Amino acid sequence: MLHSIGQKFIKSDLGRVMKHFEGFMVFVGVVGPFATLPQLAKLYFTHSQHAPGQSLVTWSLYAALSVLWFVYGLMVNKLPIYVGNGISMVLNALMVVGILLHAGVTF
Amino acid sequence: MLHSIGQKFIKSDLGRVMKHFEGFMVFVGVVGPFATLPQLAKLYFTHSQHAPGQSLVTWSLYAALSVLWFVYGLMVNKLPIYVGNGISMVLNALMVVGILLHAGVTF
Repeated sequence: MLHSIGQKFIKSDLGRVMKHFEGFMVFVGVVGPFATLPQLAKLYFTHSQHAPGQSLVTWSLYAALSVLWFVYGLMVNKLPIYVGNGISMVLNALMVVGILLHAGVTF
Repeated sequence: MLHSIGQKFIKSDLGRVMKHFEGFMVFVGVVGPFATLPQLAKLYFTHSQHAPGQSLVTWSLYAALSVLWFVYGLMVNKLPIYVGNGISMVLNALMVVGILLHAGVTF
């Protein structure tokens, strides 16, 4: 009896923690993509001379992957997936354009 | 009657497409993180002199975000989330180490 009450407590407690963590991850999914902004600032404004060090392959794949996750997010109707990846899609595409502008075609 | 059969057909057809797309996204979630490899090759081997153009803030945030998604993936027991982000976690951390080694502390 006591054991069962203990288990129920643990279960609901864990449930509450999970619910908070889920909410936090929605926030992370939407705000996280903005992590790319300092890299864009370096590429376009402060360190354009180092553009050849950026990988066009990596950023093109990132852009393509975020398009796929954006479409998937819309199909399964999950806001943190499509909003976050919608933002990533734009920022990754800007990285691709910036590399092409400042370094040309590279790997 | 015919209308209802039509709707059922469309629904199951969309369901089939969605199931295939889900499977494809599991593949994307696990293989996608390897997109970072060309960027790592440039940073460590071919273009180390351009390391100051890499944003330590961006890659540190990417590393931190992939740790969060990795933990979340384990908690909700979703393989494509924790495997993909487990790989990202390692590769993003290697980017952070490479930037510190070749450019020192930068933004």
